[in-house]
Amino acid sequence: MAIKNVTVAGGGVLGSQIALQSAYCGMNVTIWGRSEESHERTKPKLERYAGIYKQTLEETKTNPAIRARGLSDEGATAEELDALIAKVDPALASIKFTTSYEEAAKDADLIIEAVVEDAAQKIAFYQAIAPFIPEHTLMVTNSSYIVPSTFAEYTGCPERYLAMHFANDIYRGNTAEIMPHPGTDMDNYNTVVDFARAIRMEPICLYKEQFGYLLNSLLLPWFSAAENLWADDISDPQTIDKVWMLATGAPSGPFMILDTVSLPTIYAVLKTNPDAQDPTHVKYRLAQKLKEKIDKGETGVNAGKGFYDYTK
Amino acid sequence: MAIKNVTVAGGGVLGSQIALQSAYCGMNVTIWGRSEESHERTKPKLERYAGIYKQTLEETKTNPAIRARGLSDEGATAEELDALIAKVDPALASIKFTTSYEEAAKDADLIIEAVVEDAAQKIAFYQAIAPFIPEHTLMVTNSSYIVPSTFAEYTGCPERYLAMHFANDIYRGNTAEIMPHPGTDMDNYNTVVDFARAIRMEPICLYKEQFGYLLNSLLLPWFSAAENLWADDISDPQTIDKVWMLATGAPSGPFMILDTVSLPTIYAVLKTNPDAQDPTHVKYRLAQKLKEKIDKGETGVNAGKGFYDYTK
Repeated sequence: MAIKNVTVAGGGVLGSQIALQSAYCGMNVTIWGRSEESHERTKPKLERYAGIYKQTLEETKTNPAIRARGLSDEGATAEELDALIAKVDPALASIKFTTSYEEAAKDADLIIEAVVEDAAQKIAFYQAIAPFIPEHTLMVTNSSYIVPSTFAEYTGCPERYLAMHFANDIYRGNTAEIMPHPGTDMDNYNTVVDFARAIRMEPICLYKEQFGYLLNSLLLPWFSAAENLWADDISDPQTIDKVWMLATGAPSGPFMILDTVSLPTIYAVLKTNPDAQDPTHVKYRLAQKLKEKIDKGETGVNAGKGFYDYTK
Repeated sequence: MAIKNVTVAGGGVLGSQIALQSAYCGMNVTIWGRSEESHERTKPKLERYAGIYKQTLEETKTNPAIRARGLSDEGATAEELDALIAKVDPALASIKFTTSYEEAAKDADLIIEAVVEDAAQKIAFYQAIAPFIPEHTLMVTNSSYIVPSTFAEYTGCPERYLAMHFANDIYRGNTAEIMPHPGTDMDNYNTVVDFARAIRMEPICLYKEQFGYLLNSLLLPWFSAAENLWADDISDPQTIDKVWMLATGAPSGPFMILDTVSLPTIYAVLKTNPDAQDPTHVKYRLAQKLKEKIDKGETGVNAGKGFYDYTK
């Protein structure tokens, strides 16, 4: 089965990106939201991303380095890019909105759950939509930190349910980590892999459940090691980044990426770690140093200053 | 004080690279070795590296991307590169050899200990050379895994002693991680930082002792996370590398780098980890999977096959 009708549940930052990307790639897209007010918050997000799509495609004509992998192929001609630009507004206009679970489910080949990252709210969504899900419909969760087996029993279709985790700015960071739970039918898994390719995502296939998927499983211990070196005054962020970049040829080190994640986000996650409450532990010292920077407004790239100064 | 006379103790892979690089950059270099036989093993290494220096400089004329940071500046002209090529053979010829501790120490501004990575052999070296070290002489250890405070008391000059850790192929991977022990005088530390720059190394400054310095402190948890994902069949090395490269823009993922480290090296280190003996632990499964590959001869880049196939 090829996916054609897609319902995205939740029109937040990721939900609106997934909806527009799917419509841009020719899917019939419906956004389900809890209320008309939530739809009104989603619409300007969609318009903003549509503007980014058109601008990126336009700039790719003269500067191929700016190309976003989710939007155009390498080496696309100006004519091909114009044809893609012409697709953006119709794609945006084609997106339908509903607050009805029945409407959201009834024609869907695939439901992409992108509800806020809270287990209770996700379970409430699954329980409400389950009675309306047709027999052929697949469902995926975009959850970042909760594995799909947590929710499978509430979906009414565990064998047609799995996880598909997008990165932020999916038109550019076009990875989709695809992860089954133990009850997922692998034919359905493969259909979702094909769907990922159909909306220009690079499928990243996991064979088993893994907290944090692959990317966060690699990033978090690497961030933690870098943070500990800084917290213990072994060296400074710039030097730590430098040795990583020189030794591995990477364009950025851990602190450059942490500046884009933002210091308040790092701090919020850190505060859930019991070690951060223990004054003898490096994570306690890390929390102190992060809080000092946050209190000074040095919260990362968006603030103009974090571990680096972006105002210069 | 500026360093001019350098003694490199140990003419192994790193020792011979450090000696040639220092001579290439205008230092007066002596290699201390345990015996004439050890010197005879060092000389072909020096000649081989001298050949690599000349060839790399020559090729840089037509292909600037091949430039090694330790050998030439970005944008060097063909004339400048020819002048550098002309320095290589005289540098090689200028290197002196001794088996005498007294000879090794007496004129040295800096002694670089690059003896085999074995604490007992390093201590024996320090105890033997200590009586001959002049009052102005600094000494550094190139030890990878043993912090300098372990040896400081045997050197007779703890305040003039610290760690300076080179990467392999120093003419290309030109980082020098510089790390004091609690008794190091920071003026001496700064002199070593200046010396690093004088031999075209990028100094990576640590303020305190740290096991694994900065680079291995970042690499090891990142390798471990990647290895665990593979050991538990969450995904495969190619997919794990792919998500890292796509998400961070890096030119290589952890398994590509592990292939250059070589699987027998990883396996040897892993076997020292008690978790690798516990059949319920992921490190046990990792050891099994590594051994399978090693038994098939898939030991890494040098074998033509490791996590990747290099014969295609």
